[in-house]
Amino acid sequence: MADIGIGILGGGYMGKAHSVAMAAVGAVFNTALRPRLEMICASTPESAERYRAAYGFARATDDWRELVNDPKVDAIVIATPQSTHRAIAEVAFALGKPVLCEKPMGADLTDAAAMTEAAEAAGVANMVAYNYIRTPASQYARALIAEGAIGEITWFRGEHTEDFLANPDAPANWRTEGMANGTMGDLAPHMINAALALIGPLDSLVAELETVHHTRPGGTVTNDDHGQIMCRFANGTMGHMFFSRIATGRKMGYAYEVTGTKGAIRFDQEDQNAIWLYKSEGPEAERGFRKILTGPAHPDYEPFCQGPGHGTGYQDQIIIEARDFLQAIHTGQPVWPTFRDGLDVARVIDTALTSAQSRSWQTIPKG
Amino acid sequence: MADIGIGILGGGYMGKAHSVAMAAVGAVFNTALRPRLEMICASTPESAERYRAAYGFARATDDWRELVNDPKVDAIVIATPQSTHRAIAEVAFALGKPVLCEKPMGADLTDAAAMTEAAEAAGVANMVAYNYIRTPASQYARALIAEGAIGEITWFRGEHTEDFLANPDAPANWRTEGMANGTMGDLAPHMINAALALIGPLDSLVAELETVHHTRPGGTVTNDDHGQIMCRFANGTMGHMFFSRIATGRKMGYAYEVTGTKGAIRFDQEDQNAIWLYKSEGPEAERGFRKILTGPAHPDYEPFCQGPGHGTGYQDQIIIEARDFLQAIHTGQPVWPTFRDGLDVARVIDTALTSAQSRSWQTIPKG
Amino acid sequence: MADIGIGILGGGYMGKAHSVAMAAVGAVFNTALRPRLEMICASTPESAERYRAAYGFARATDDWRELVNDPKVDAIVIATPQSTHRAIAEVAFALGKPVLCEKPMGADLTDAAAMTEAAEAAGVANMVAYNYIRTPASQYARALIAEGAIGEITWFRGEHTEDFLANPDAPANWRTEGMANGTMGDLAPHMINAALALIGPLDSLVAELETVHHTRPGGTVTNDDHGQIMCRFANGTMGHMFFSRIATGRKMGYAYEVTGTKGAIRFDQEDQNAIWLYKSEGPEAERGFRKILTGPAHPDYEPFCQGPGHGTGYQDQIIIEARDFLQAIHTGQPVWPTFRDGLDVARVIDTALTSAQSRSWQTIPKG
Amino acid sequence: MADIGIGILGGGYMGKAHSVAMAAVGAVFNTALRPRLEMICASTPESAERYRAAYGFARATDDWRELVNDPKVDAIVIATPQSTHRAIAEVAFALGKPVLCEKPMGADLTDAAAMTEAAEAAGVANMVAYNYIRTPASQYARALIAEGAIGEITWFRGEHTEDFLANPDAPANWRTEGMANGTMGDLAPHMINAALALIGPLDSLVAELETVHHTRPGGTVTNDDHGQIMCRFANGTMGHMFFSRIATGRKMGYAYEVTGTKGAIRFDQEDQNAIWLYKSEGPEAERGFRKILTGPAHPDYEPFCQGPGHGTGYQDQIIIEARDFLQAIHTGQPVWPTFRDGLDVARVIDTALTSAQSRSWQTIPKG
Ligand SMILES: NC(=O)C1=CN([C@@H]2O[C@H](COP(=O)(O)OP(=O)(O)OC[C@H]3O[C@@H](n4cnc5c(N)ncnc54)[C@H](O)[C@@H]3O)[C@@H](O)[C@H]2O)C=CC1
Ligand SMILES: NC(=O)C1=CN([C@@H]2O[C@H](COP(=O)(O)OP(=O)(O)OC[C@H]3O[C@@H](n4cnc5c(N)ncnc54)[C@H](O)[C@@H]3O)[C@@H](O)[C@H]2O)C=CC1
Ligand SMILES: NC(=O)C1=CN([C@@H]2O[C@H](COP(=O)(O)OP(=O)(O)OC[C@H]3O[C@@H](n4cnc5c(N)ncnc54)[C@H](O)[C@@H]3O)[C@@H](O)[C@H]2O)C=CC1
Ligand SMILES: NC(=O)C1=CN([C@@H]2O[C@H](COP(=O)(O)OP(=O)(O)OC[C@H]3O[C@@H](n4cnc5c(N)ncnc54)[C@H](O)[C@@H]3O)[C@@H](O)[C@H]2O)C=CC1
Repeated sequence: MADIGIGILGGGYMGKAHSVAMAAVGAVFNTALRPRLEMICASTPESAERYRAAYGFARATDDWRELVNDPKVDAIVIATPQSTHRAIAEVAFALGKPVLCEKPMGADLTDAAAMTEAAEAAGVANMVAYNYIRTPASQYARALIAEGAIGEITWFRGEHTEDFLANPDAPANWRTEGMANGTMGDLAPHMINAALALIGPLDSLVAELETVHHTRPGGTVTNDDHGQIMCRFANGTMGHMFFSRIATGRKMGYAYEVTGTKGAIRFDQEDQNAIWLYKSEGPEAERGFRKILTGPAHPDYEPFCQGPGHGTGYQDQIIIEARDFLQAIHTGQPVWPTFRDGLDVARVIDTALTSAQSRSWQTIPKG
Repeated sequence: MADIGIGILGGGYMGKAHSVAMAAVGAVFNTALRPRLEMICASTPESAERYRAAYGFARATDDWRELVNDPKVDAIVIATPQSTHRAIAEVAFALGKPVLCEKPMGADLTDAAAMTEAAEAAGVANMVAYNYIRTPASQYARALIAEGAIGEITWFRGEHTEDFLANPDAPANWRTEGMANGTMGDLAPHMINAALALIGPLDSLVAELETVHHTRPGGTVTNDDHGQIMCRFANGTMGHMFFSRIATGRKMGYAYEVTGTKGAIRFDQEDQNAIWLYKSEGPEAERGFRKILTGPAHPDYEPFCQGPGHGTGYQDQIIIEARDFLQAIHTGQPVWPTFRDGLDVARVIDTALTSAQSRSWQTIPKG
Repeated sequence: MADIGIGILGGGYMGKAHSVAMAAVGAVFNTALRPRLEMICASTPESAERYRAAYGFARATDDWRELVNDPKVDAIVIATPQSTHRAIAEVAFALGKPVLCEKPMGADLTDAAAMTEAAEAAGVANMVAYNYIRTPASQYARALIAEGAIGEITWFRGEHTEDFLANPDAPANWRTEGMANGTMGDLAPHMINAALALIGPLDSLVAELETVHHTRPGGTVTNDDHGQIMCRFANGTMGHMFFSRIATGRKMGYAYEVTGTKGAIRFDQEDQNAIWLYKSEGPEAERGFRKILTGPAHPDYEPFCQGPGHGTGYQDQIIIEARDFLQAIHTGQPVWPTFRDGLDVARVIDTALTSAQSRSWQTIPKG
Repeated sequence: MADIGIGILGGGYMGKAHSVAMAAVGAVFNTALRPRLEMICASTPESAERYRAAYGFARATDDWRELVNDPKVDAIVIATPQSTHRAIAEVAFALGKPVLCEKPMGADLTDAAAMTEAAEAAGVANMVAYNYIRTPASQYARALIAEGAIGEITWFRGEHTEDFLANPDAPANWRTEGMANGTMGDLAPHMINAALALIGPLDSLVAELETVHHTRPGGTVTNDDHGQIMCRFANGTMGHMFFSRIATGRKMGYAYEVTGTKGAIRFDQEDQNAIWLYKSEGPEAERGFRKILTGPAHPDYEPFCQGPGHGTGYQDQIIIEARDFLQAIHTGQPVWPTFRDGLDVARVIDTALTSAQSRSWQTIPKG
């Protein structure tokens, strides 16, 4: 059991989540590599020190290059805003250090492509932090679909909807500026990644974006409040996705339904410990969507609890992610989703922007 | 309390529903006009006579012209296949007889336009049978939206999904032939009508249709299994609709969600006695979608039951419809949805077909 | 197809429901006997006449004896308050006329016993109006349990909860006086009848009753607001029942869960078109309660609608009841629940009152 | 920020959960005391060493006295079987070491009383590990009730139901022997503790226990499979509780409903991130149970995630528990539930056993 020095960039929402995950993952998964909370970085010395003390890191800095270069930092987690991801990742890869990067990969497709190139040139572990697809329920959904439990897939509907900007009087802030922080840049990647994972590559799409509230107290809004995509997957499945940050009432509306010729699956992250499965089996009178509660029979559940239906939560997804990242480092085998997988997501988003502007169907360029 | 002679064309699924409704409506709603089940028509003398005896009509015929012309038949209900609607309606209107016509209005936009013209020329009661929008829950949803309970509407998502052809081995039949019997012709009208009622007129759309199972035992399928529409309403609301007859697991998936700046509404016909309402009011900690059970406080519920939560069903919608039709006849005032309203639905469908073929956004022509 | 003259006593909540049912049942079920709405009775000539006109009866009276004795009245439906049931039924049976009697059978066990004796002496059709157990869902639940689909039954929990007197400021009225109108007298019978139907005869129980709000505007409350029973069925099943008219938030809380060694069933009347079934079959990972929507595959559904998931409602239960009553008359075969079955319910209630007073376990006397 | 040496007894289901919690709690809650995983104990040297390595402890032992006496072990967590709790706790308290003890406190009321005495004599932090009541949802339910949000409480129904022994062919094991391991000993304490926390002290009860499956492969069953209690709280609330380990289909059925004069609350641990609240406020037509998703507005949620509806899980409850234990140690102030609170639970259970045997109502002895 070797330990590994972890450096985390950012101590906010996700910086904390990754810190906790690194503190807990060894005990949960009995990992071969054991994280040592080596250094944390935030924008000011004060905040960095505050995070260090709170999360239990050995050292703090406000200079991300210092962290990335530190010899005791063996692996990097990027949890700073999207605009910073590329530069950090490129330096880390140049030093041959493994990177777990928060979604989206960078500010745009150009960033994502450059980051993928850097990752592959370095040949070290690289992973994008799509946590929601790692719940026991969604992992199980992937498995069910892959093994044909619901037959040939005919329809996919996904959404990622929240309501943190539903109130028109919520003030303008950094989230209301720049495409990378809009709904398509910030929320869509999670569900697009899910769509690719559950169904497969996308072939074409037609998209629509909208800024519903153009001005907010304190400024003008320059990115999209919500957007939608009609799409066709390479395997022929028809699909639709919807993304919104103004979906009043929706708190964590990462939800999908997948229809097949022999069954269907429904999932909603707001009840993340349940997955609904319908199978066209048995007498008609007994058919119905069954609400399956996740338990030790489902992927990555048992390490959290021996009892079925006892439930995992948001933080646990980040712990699973940490396990995967450590495993990629330890085994030298890539763990999905790599930067290349993240690039596929970025390509879909980029095509959606084109489609929305041209108001036309577009084919997603091959990777 | 005057009685009125009712003639019903068709004795199948809907012919029966209308017969029962006409038998019950007087007692339920204490209507001014009291239906007398005068004559029923079906394709053969034998079936017509069988329906007559079963539903309690005075007379039967296999000739729809005989029924329409019969002097004791004061009002007509058309519950035969779509291809027959136009001819019957035109004759009825020429005789000055009121018509309640099953959806969709005819086989296509041309039919619908001609039927509307005939109805308006006759100047008698004319109504299209969109029953689902008449549940206490959906009537209440309309009222809530209209009175601004959820603020400005920003998003509409609707679906009408069933699975009666989900099994690829289900044989070809009349339903699998002709656009009027496909999903866009047969199921979409209900939800499009709902969208227009809940949100308002549509401005533009981009649509996609698909025949998933091209051949079935006994023949080739010539119409669509499922389809979807991205759309924009005249009031600016962004929207999406999905229609399917192969939605495995869905039995009566007439469902919608409406998001506003101050709240949201969700409804699913599979639980037709509940409506989900979210309001951005009160302390954050107490907010959530509330499941409201319909009761005497909601439209058209009390005549069916004095107890809240006791529930109404499919047949009750047809009874409400019968009440509305009788009232239109009695008062001489049109009751929504008239043939002109039905024409609006037909126009959306026609535009969707054009859009799907041209794979492009299309503006819905003005009425 | 013979017609049969129906006389209904009471034109209120249930008087109306039975009137509508008698108007509709022929068309719905193609019954051999066709009801003719002959006469209706209410407490005053004015109200009787009003009901007559509204529901479509031929004649009206305010004298129940006149109705019962009328030669054109072939069958009687009692929908007046509990205190009147016995006298009416006894006269009707003495005349050899079939009776459908609203629950509870009379004001107490003595009434119920006398009424059963009268019914059996007359040898004509007699039935107690337990409508809720007649939904397609609950009929299906009975069938599933009877055929062993969920194994040996180990646990039953039932409730009948509403909130019409939850507000302490709701005024005193006839409902708040007399044990027959209290929760145990008025609401409990439905669920006790269900328990006997689903599981079988009861062996013993310990009960508790409570008047929570002793005074209300306008008077003193002399009966129970809520009550509960722990019980043991003759087949060994352990059980519990709860009844309340002050169950804030509950509108039609007729709900039960039945646990067996191989599965479980859950039902709630507030979503009467769904039944939840769990079976201990197949891989653990795929197990869960499935929400089955009623449809043509379930008992007595198809006559109301050919489409699954389209739903039946409260009024439809009364129509099913009318069908059963007509059938009992037509065939001369008793249809469950007869007065004797209703007597079993009355016996349980009577034992519960004894138990609550003595605060002790009691054995239910054999019938 | 001082560190504190933690010794955990038991490395199984709960031993692991407490280990992970102690590893994570500092980073999650920025605790004043920071746990150091000092020593773990299990029944054999091999298993102890395996747990040590897996969870990241410094040292391991198979002798609980060694752990308790170790000078570097500052605080004790007891996660061994119930029969061992008392002896361990007594030694720990004699040494003046704080103890967090898994439920139930010991094997019976005698144990619980002795342990409480020892705890209070020592005057150090002592806490019983009732984790479920620590979810944000249940903490919020307690607060709502306490502040009168649903008025005067009139009814409480609770259950703790699982199905791990539902299969009659599941073999006999230690769980099927000894009252402390039966349903009343093992599962009931959680819900009784919840009842006391939500409503207040119990006054009296009548209970029933049953061993449904007397023999199982490998042996005879000597404890109860399920049981129920009708009860009355000191504040007058009527109540019922049900406990089962054979509740087929139920995985984590820790569920309760609380009815008040102005509202009601429902909760089910199987969907632990939602709480259902009904308030008798506003227009009748808008009333309904609202499904509130926990978020930063609810107790102890934000440290786990800044986004509402993102959800916490089983492990997070144990982390909250660890925070409370550390806080009790740090501040010297008792944190609920102390051993004395646990003794109240034991007293209810003991009374229930007496009641079940005597088949009579019993008053719970005062503490
Ligand atoms: N996977 C998921 O569920 C979520 C992912 N995210 C992603 O995580 C990333 C971080 O977002 P949040 O944690 O919400 O942001 P945040 O605003 O809560 O925290 C950002 C942190 O980055 C630090 N930072 C900013 N610029 C820096 C710089 N130049 N050098 C060093 N430190 C700097 C700040 O001091 C702060 O500690 C984003 O890419 C976002 O898209 C965010 C929320 C949820
Ligand atoms: N509102 C709703 O929920 C529903 C509406 N519909 C609509 O109702 C209409 C009827 O559909 P279903 O009742 O399902 O059909 P069905 O096949 O069950 O019954 C059709 C009836 O029309 C009669 N018929 C057919 N051609 C005729 C002719 N030329 N002359 C006289 N009678 C003729 C047949 O004998 C049969 O009695 C269609 O327009 C359909 O779209 C159907 C089902 C549900
Ligand atoms: N199965 C079910 O779901 C329900 C059953 N019930 C039962 O139905 C029965 C009637 O209750 P509701 O309809 O709610 O009462 P209601 O108060 O609405 O109507 C009672 C009717 O009886 C008439 N009436 C009263 N005394 C009479 C007399 N001496 N002679 C002639 N007419 C008289 C009144 O004029 C009135 O028309 C009761 O036994 C009640 O328990 C009531 C509601 C629901
Ligand atoms: N709060 C909750 O949700 C739960 C609480 N529990 C409680 O936790 C306690 C432990 O139960 P589990 O973890 O399920 O048991 P387990 O069987 O999974 O683990 C018991 C552990 O105790 C050790 N052990 C047993 N006897 C010992 C001895 N004499 N000396 C040293 N170590 C010994 C074993 O080696 C094993 O590591 C029980 O009191 C149980 O009631 C159990 C499950 C859930």
